[in-house]
Amino acid sequence: MGNGTNLLGVRDYNEQVVLELIRVNGGISRVEIAKRVGLTAQTVSNIVRRTLEKGLVVESEKVSPVSVGKPRVGLQINPQAGYALGVQIDCDEITLVVLDLAGGVVYTTERETPEEHGPDAVVSEVAELVEDSLIGSELERGKVLGLGVCCPGPLDHDTGVVYNPPNLRGWTEVPLKDSLEQKVGLPVLVDNDATASAVGERWSGGAQGARDFAFIYVGVGIGAGLFLDNRLLRGSSSNAGEFGHTTLNIEGPECFCGRRGCVEMYCAPAAVARRVQQRLDAGVQSIMTQWERGELLFEDVSAAAVEGDALARDELVRSSRMLGQGVVDLVNTLDLELVVLGGKGLGEAAGIYVQEIEEILRQTTLARNLQHTRVELSHGGTYSGSVGGAASVLHTTYHPQLRGVETV
Amino acid sequence: MGNGTNLLGVRDYNEQVVLELIRVNGGISRVEIAKRVGLTAQTVSNIVRRTLEKGLVVESEKVSPVSVGKPRVGLQINPQAGYALGVQIDCDEITLVVLDLAGGVVYTTERETPEEHGPDAVVSEVAELVEDSLIGSELERGKVLGLGVCCPGPLDHDTGVVYNPPNLRGWTEVPLKDSLEQKVGLPVLVDNDATASAVGERWSGGAQGARDFAFIYVGVGIGAGLFLDNRLLRGSSSNAGEFGHTTLNIEGPECFCGRRGCVEMYCAPAAVARRVQQRLDAGVQSIMTQWERGELLFEDVSAAAVEGDALARDELVRSSRMLGQGVVDLVNTLDLELVVLGGKGLGEAAGIYVQEIEEILRQTTLARNLQHTRVELSHGGTYSGSVGGAASVLHTTYHPQLRGVETV
Repeated sequence: MGNGTNLLGVRDYNEQVVLELIRVNGGISRVEIAKRVGLTAQTVSNIVRRTLEKGLVVESEKVSPVSVGKPRVGLQINPQAGYALGVQIDCDEITLVVLDLAGGVVYTTERETPEEHGPDAVVSEVAELVEDSLIGSELERGKVLGLGVCCPGPLDHDTGVVYNPPNLRGWTEVPLKDSLEQKVGLPVLVDNDATASAVGERWSGGAQGARDFAFIYVGVGIGAGLFLDNRLLRGSSSNAGEFGHTTLNIEGPECFCGRRGCVEMYCAPAAVARRVQQRLDAGVQSIMTQWERGELLFEDVSAAAVEGDALARDELVRSSRMLGQGVVDLVNTLDLELVVLGGKGLGEAAGIYVQEIEEILRQTTLARNLQHTRVELSHGGTYSGSVGGAASVLHTTYHPQLRGVETV
Repeated sequence: MGNGTNLLGVRDYNEQVVLELIRVNGGISRVEIAKRVGLTAQTVSNIVRRTLEKGLVVESEKVSPVSVGKPRVGLQINPQAGYALGVQIDCDEITLVVLDLAGGVVYTTERETPEEHGPDAVVSEVAELVEDSLIGSELERGKVLGLGVCCPGPLDHDTGVVYNPPNLRGWTEVPLKDSLEQKVGLPVLVDNDATASAVGERWSGGAQGARDFAFIYVGVGIGAGLFLDNRLLRGSSSNAGEFGHTTLNIEGPECFCGRRGCVEMYCAPAAVARRVQQRLDAGVQSIMTQWERGELLFEDVSAAAVEGDALARDELVRSSRMLGQGVVDLVNTLDLELVVLGGKGLGEAAGIYVQEIEEILRQTTLARNLQHTRVELSHGGTYSGSVGGAASVLHTTYHPQLRGVETV
């Protein structure tokens, strides 16, 4: 996009670095910025003056230093300087959030995905939802930097084309970015749900200080959003993070991806529900046998586990441990300090996953004596994807982008 | 370190970006640099003047443009402006190379690792090797930017402490960087063999244009050096790349790491040799039965495969395919455009690995319709580690480092 950048008038790399520092360290002073980024006091002063003039940054009250010296003026992002919309599309519902420039959630809404899921109907529905939200949140259109859409992959982030997500019927090479830009009249970014969620977690969740972390997104499938060395990893074809197809057992059951024993075969919500159903059919005792809910869903298993059902708990622990083995592979390969779990499919028994995976990491990562890898639940809850979509717009707008390096 | 940077007098981020561009695109003009990095012509001109004055860059003959316009002066790194030493330590031998500032190999030598491998003896041996090499290559000490040492992990790149590599006897928390800096009198960098090899391949091998690639290093164990989005990934505790302990079969044989069915259990050279020995003992026909070489080594299996032995070929194909499954996991997770195979343990039948792994990637990666991931052999051969050590010094000296972002 870049439209966002133009709208805010962010001039160059140094200005982006300064804005990012102010965002992450609200209240930071000019002197400290100069120290942190290695620019001269004069340069920082000029940059800050420009951002103040443009209304991107505001001065807070003076802060007296701990020891000697004159009080310093703290700087903060002006939340009202701009807004970003985020939308998540999945087979059940479309959710929308509005974030302000500081990453605060100012509005949320959702509606059902049109029954047939076809791309035209979904695009129209998103456009309508955006219009309603602008009215509902009393936002000036001119202050909206863009719309970040997250949906299942594979997709091409650069062109905004969504290929053929297994869970959206009739989607084949859908030019989602172009269609939405036309209908909505805002710059549009497209990311998969795990990648978007990782950006969201770094902007307004629990990963704000994390240099290296993965967001494990459990939806219908399982993906990983990766933030490595302070940067989002999209990958060469913008499809990084296909963690759900990491092999756990080369001799295991066949997966639709053509390989065997992938993480999703053991840990996707539907796989867990299927296994519980098999054990119920085999006569294992459980409170679930008395439930008359039609086809057993993962939500039912979660609910039963929360009520203390042994079978449900047993299967969730088993699935957590399998997921944990995949996460250990990821942590060993990428040397992560934090793993965030989230996504709509994680359900109400998510605590079991956190506990089991943390335990496996503590016992088996190769660098466990050098680093303890934390495991946390996403702060975004069921909104993690749409918060992430909006955060991606903010991220593109003012996270430092290094043209020099990227063209090398 | 940073000493290297000071020695060359590289002033700031913009100067690093310009130097890196000139290095990767030898013969590039000022106008093109300005276009690529988004700096003004005047700024680029000032930066280039400084690098010319410092002797880091030289002008080449004028190049006439294809269409109209005046001829442009091409710029090139001055290879003689500085040198870097690289050393690889393993349980058999210590190898050393000298690279010039343009990444060219100007000297190589090696000697046996002292029999008991103890850290003191190894440090003394490296110091002696460095002195001999400075004399042998007629290098002024003042022109040497530093020494990059690569050895098996786990280790801490920042402090230069090597923990307890399973293949170096008596190494426990060895302050390798400090000891060598004292003995050798040069700034020292420490990296593991896979990470160093990846840097080497990007500097003077086949990965110079690759944005996202992995160097799969086959030594005694198997590791991955990762270059993602044009940047080396060291990881939070500088131990990224423990690819050899990625799970292939959660129900497979126990690994020394405490987990089961790791890549190394199927693909490490000793594991392959062991399996071949078992099949020989079981009476399978092979030219290897006539060889009287004592304990069967992986080298023997490679040699037999090259001579057309069916058993040897069969087992190498099997091990390549298992390695390939692990590589697919890596490519799916990181969305890589290139995989480089190398390391001292790969042996003379390395072509089998390239062919089998390329085939598996072509058939099974999730983004295979969007991107073909190439597989290549390292250009560094048995020197990939020591070339990588020296390249790490050059990399640290003038690859763009982003202070602003890294402190966020």
